[in-house]
Amino acid sequence: MLHFECDYLMGAHPKLLERLVETNMEALSGYGSDHHTDTAKEKIRTAIGCPEAEVHFLVGGTQTNRIVIDSMLHSYEGVIAATTGHVSVHEAGAIEASGHKVLTLPGKDGKLEADTVRQYIRRFYSDPSYTHMVFPGMVYISHPTEYGTLYTRSELEALSAVCREFQIPLYLDGARLGYGLMSETTDVTIRDIARLCDVFYIGGTKVGALCGEAVVFPKGNAPKHLFTIIKQNGALLAKGRLTAVQFDTLFTDDLYFKISAHAIAMAAKLKTLFREKGYAFFLDSPTNQQFIILENSKLAQMQEYVRFEFWEPVDAGHSAVRFCTSWATTDADLQALATYL
Amino acid sequence: MLHFECDYLMGAHPKLLERLVETNMEALSGYGSDHHTDTAKEKIRTAIGCPEAEVHFLVGGTQTNRIVIDSMLHSYEGVIAATTGHVSVHEAGAIEASGHKVLTLPGKDGKLEADTVRQYIRRFYSDPSYTHMVFPGMVYISHPTEYGTLYTRSELEALSAVCREFQIPLYLDGARLGYGLMSETTDVTIRDIARLCDVFYIGGTKVGALCGEAVVFPKGNAPKHLFTIIKQNGALLAKGRLTAVQFDTLFTDDLYFKISAHAIAMAAKLKTLFREKGYAFFLDSPTNQQFIILENSKLAQMQEYVRFEFWEPVDAGHSAVRFCTSWATTDADLQALATYL
Amino acid sequence: MLHFECDYLMGAHPKLLERLVETNMEALSGYGSDHHTDTAKEKIRTAIGCPEAEVHFLVGGTQTNRIVIDSMLHSYEGVIAATTGHVSVHEAGAIEASGHKVLTLPGKDGKLEADTVRQYIRRFYSDPSYTHMVFPGMVYISHPTEYGTLYTRSELEALSAVCREFQIPLYLDGARLGYGLMSETTDVTIRDIARLCDVFYIGGTKVGALCGEAVVFPKGNAPKHLFTIIKQNGALLAKGRLTAVQFDTLFTDDLYFKISAHAIAMAAKLKTLFREKGYAFFLDSPTNQQFIILENSKLAQMQEYVRFEFWEPVDAGHSAVRFCTSWATTDADLQALATYL
Amino acid sequence: MLHFECDYLMGAHPKLLERLVETNMEALSGYGSDHHTDTAKEKIRTAIGCPEAEVHFLVGGTQTNRIVIDSMLHSYEGVIAATTGHVSVHEAGAIEASGHKVLTLPGKDGKLEADTVRQYIRRFYSDPSYTHMVFPGMVYISHPTEYGTLYTRSELEALSAVCREFQIPLYLDGARLGYGLMSETTDVTIRDIARLCDVFYIGGTKVGALCGEAVVFPKGNAPKHLFTIIKQNGALLAKGRLTAVQFDTLFTDDLYFKISAHAIAMAAKLKTLFREKGYAFFLDSPTNQQFIILENSKLAQMQEYVRFEFWEPVDAGHSAVRFCTSWATTDADLQALATYL
Repeated sequence: MLHFECDYLMGAHPKLLERLVETNMEALSGYGSDHHTDTAKEKIRTAIGCPEAEVHFLVGGTQTNRIVIDSMLHSYEGVIAATTGHVSVHEAGAIEASGHKVLTLPGKDGKLEADTVRQYIRRFYSDPSYTHMVFPGMVYISHPTEYGTLYTRSELEALSAVCREFQIPLYLDGARLGYGLMSETTDVTIRDIARLCDVFYIGGTKVGALCGEAVVFPKGNAPKHLFTIIKQNGALLAKGRLTAVQFDTLFTDDLYFKISAHAIAMAAKLKTLFREKGYAFFLDSPTNQQFIILENSKLAQMQEYVRFEFWEPVDAGHSAVRFCTSWATTDADLQALATYL
Repeated sequence: MLHFECDYLMGAHPKLLERLVETNMEALSGYGSDHHTDTAKEKIRTAIGCPEAEVHFLVGGTQTNRIVIDSMLHSYEGVIAATTGHVSVHEAGAIEASGHKVLTLPGKDGKLEADTVRQYIRRFYSDPSYTHMVFPGMVYISHPTEYGTLYTRSELEALSAVCREFQIPLYLDGARLGYGLMSETTDVTIRDIARLCDVFYIGGTKVGALCGEAVVFPKGNAPKHLFTIIKQNGALLAKGRLTAVQFDTLFTDDLYFKISAHAIAMAAKLKTLFREKGYAFFLDSPTNQQFIILENSKLAQMQEYVRFEFWEPVDAGHSAVRFCTSWATTDADLQALATYL
Repeated sequence: MLHFECDYLMGAHPKLLERLVETNMEALSGYGSDHHTDTAKEKIRTAIGCPEAEVHFLVGGTQTNRIVIDSMLHSYEGVIAATTGHVSVHEAGAIEASGHKVLTLPGKDGKLEADTVRQYIRRFYSDPSYTHMVFPGMVYISHPTEYGTLYTRSELEALSAVCREFQIPLYLDGARLGYGLMSETTDVTIRDIARLCDVFYIGGTKVGALCGEAVVFPKGNAPKHLFTIIKQNGALLAKGRLTAVQFDTLFTDDLYFKISAHAIAMAAKLKTLFREKGYAFFLDSPTNQQFIILENSKLAQMQEYVRFEFWEPVDAGHSAVRFCTSWATTDADLQALATYL
Repeated sequence: MLHFECDYLMGAHPKLLERLVETNMEALSGYGSDHHTDTAKEKIRTAIGCPEAEVHFLVGGTQTNRIVIDSMLHSYEGVIAATTGHVSVHEAGAIEASGHKVLTLPGKDGKLEADTVRQYIRRFYSDPSYTHMVFPGMVYISHPTEYGTLYTRSELEALSAVCREFQIPLYLDGARLGYGLMSETTDVTIRDIARLCDVFYIGGTKVGALCGEAVVFPKGNAPKHLFTIIKQNGALLAKGRLTAVQFDTLFTDDLYFKISAHAIAMAAKLKTLFREKGYAFFLDSPTNQQFIILENSKLAQMQEYVRFEFWEPVDAGHSAVRFCTSWATTDADLQALATYL
């Protein structure tokens, strides 16, 4: 069976495991007070060019979204997100469970547009009954989006400007950040993100780690006592080394970027394979998630040999499906896939 | 520097890391739907003698306590715990953050007594204004307790009987369960716990794992859709293999029990070392946490060579301190310690 | 200045105040344990034909929606509502603040259609990742809706059937229930509502009371310990007489229905006034809220003499506005209004 | 049957009802935007000598405590209260339901001592694991307390100084504030309270109103968007007149103080009655709640004619009971009571 159904199929990139093994018998103090945590944070600060950034390591994406959003919003505020945003759909109501409405706006291929956000907020404040409504308190975007698409630098600048205008934070969910940064078509660097966002996270789980996301407050603007908030949410690791050693390794010798680039190269090859065989694409994704249109009979036939994700029906006879590459995808995987197309 | 300050200083027991490395490149489906999760659960069911038990793997103790307690209580209920219980003191208000009061009762050396609980609940229901108060909805105990002490089987039976009487669940926090079960003085087996409790967790983080706690509902009595509740709380690992492989290994060839027994043997030796040198004990702990009384000058002097935890002042000149052994403590550590006593 | 901007402008219907005055110096026990509460509940049970119904008196609509919805949902569930539903828009995120997502579906003139709901729920359960999403746990409708429109009996039956099919409760927000029941065009009786819904509330605040809503569980199916839940939410009146005496009076000699019928008669006259002068209607409302299209210049001119609510822009030169009648509207009010049209 | 069981037995003081009747047919805009709300607030500002104070009218005490405490605390903070404080015991876990721990400290006759609070907070910050614990974020006191006792001005000053020292707000629950202020023994004025507290409420429900509490932020220091927070909590009255007219009347011609003084005079007479007959007092209360020790046989005998509240057992043969006077207690009531002593 070939596997292209997601980008978290394998364990960790071998170098991460190797370092966990090497450091395993060091006696380290708990809760992120160890030296690996310090160096991992420092390497991230260097990579993003923000010496004053605050970095916290959390375990997974939903946990991170819930804690970041809840800790930065007032009780009367909600978070603006695209209708297709992960927080709107696939986090089991985690944001609402922490007390906040997700204020959904229509996006385009998973992306929120600055004008849509501006108009929404303007309309909000011009509504005579706005004090009876949920205040827009933050903008949430994912980059890459759930559709593998990317914001351009100017789109991010526009969103950042709206947030500045209304003095609310811009939050970027970077569950697959590496794959976005290494896309051949992007003009967005991690330093742009650090400059334009108030908070973002660098995804580990989908980019080579066993678990772990690094939340970054680039301006040192983390909510007061975030450590205790993390603890209260049950998100504090006793053995902080687990995430710290992994992020330290990912940010040593640009490993995070190199393995992301590999996944992108594999995605480009996969794209070529499908294109050469005449398949149509559901949308044009520049990252490691590729959305292809299959005839339903072909889909059924391929499922015997290859795992991929059903995305949505296109018409009576066709469906959109998703193929993911990752740091672990090999040329052999692609060659085997080619034989089934 | 010697380390006795806690039982989560090292990474994972080497066998666990080894298995993580061996299985690393298996392509596994996410969120606990992989075969390691299945076998790990099955091995736990066998170990506790409950074929119908439901098992869920979570990441840490506070997360586990918060999710178990909140998912089993009604909104109008609180959880009874000893004043010294972990949920009352050192979880940053996680239980209250999920909406529930911790109803604290005085314990003895960290233990709740069945009679105290029964009297409290009886008094509650005989109070004419009890519908204006928080209903007692669950009993929480830790075993070993925060003081390293253990319930006897008959004490657990008495607590279980109180819970039956008032039809509320008994929940046992087993963050250090292995060390309790392998104590030489205990008459409590893991099957007793499965028989007498409605829910308990088998601690991994403090007993050889990098992270992970196994929540067990021995009668198959987990709250409906607990999977989604776990997701909503940000506690679902995308790579379920991380906890599954570790617990699978811990419950293969009795590793969990063997490494716990090692820690207990080390604790016994440590106890002897202190006793032979004439030190007094703050309380008599039969597990891996030992509480010793030091003169304050001795304390200061030892801190240059040995890490241990300050517990509480005893009198003007003396303090109680805690020394922990673990699966990772060696005879060499104890020999070195002996030279400083 | 003439007032048509809403239906809660005046205090209470004089009979209610009269009874509050008459009973004022009775010494009554607190928290709803008085005899007026008993008789008020009994009169409601009789009016709806459900001797086993449970009735609770709350203070206002948002409070009622929040408590009913939160107390009937599991933590992993949300409530389905029309995009325009009061709980979705104008309750400041009260539902989310209690932990639940409002799952909005497009409606028609404020009404949810049974097919829309059924398709949504079917799609939910056929989504392979539904356990990562918010479960549909209840259907919320308002009757009359926020647009003054009404469900027909067969529409309610269809919604009730969907709820039965998926075993989730149907909840009807009756903030303006009286005005709906007395509409000349409706075929829905209060007994139909009691038969078809699992819970509904009879609005007092907008139908003649100073405050107060009567929540009805027609099948005696209130959540366990709802009294304590109400207390915990800060919604329990120490002097239960305040709402009890008012509802007792509203349900004596059909006062609730008579004053509602008066408002409907006034609305019919108001409608005729506008129609005769050639005004267009934004939508056809059979209840006490009337939506008229005004030229913007006319709108500005009328605002000097009459208060009404701006609803939404229609085109560059026209706006939709809302005029409300109530139990307190008089023929003199309408005659005066006529002079400004 | 004579009634002394509580101070909320009757409806409203007749003058309040009278004004509700007189103003009933005024068309007033909703949600507290009416002129009665304005004048009521202004009268309170004048009475407390704080022209910049912010005043909000809420419906009941638990609601007020929950909203004030939750809106002023950070998520990682709890509220310090006496073990006997209303928020600790008789509000059905309302504070915890909003996410915050009540940090209970032993009091004396219902009162918290400044030193106890200071020592607790100092100990907290000197605990090496305090970031794993609930931060003390506010001090809650009731005045009069649940035992009818009163803080002296210097005690309030001391508590206020502790709060200043640690920069946390001091919150005074004045459910029975009038009875405290009119006590013959007190040296505390309402202006002292406004000076020393960061927030307090002036109780209406127990001091002559049908419902209503006035929350006062004497320094204009209300949390941002408290209006929306109140709405979100279901505590916003559509007809703000209900509480506004009552408070406007209570603060016209010192009615609030006069009726409180009446209750205090009645309590003094009641005290004399019991003392002259040789009854012992459970504690010495200077306000409208009197705690008397009865022989159990006498208690049973009196219950046939008089309602009062059982407080707690004193010894095998005696019980403490509570008698309350109020604005509505008459000399005739006391004369009748005398015949049963």
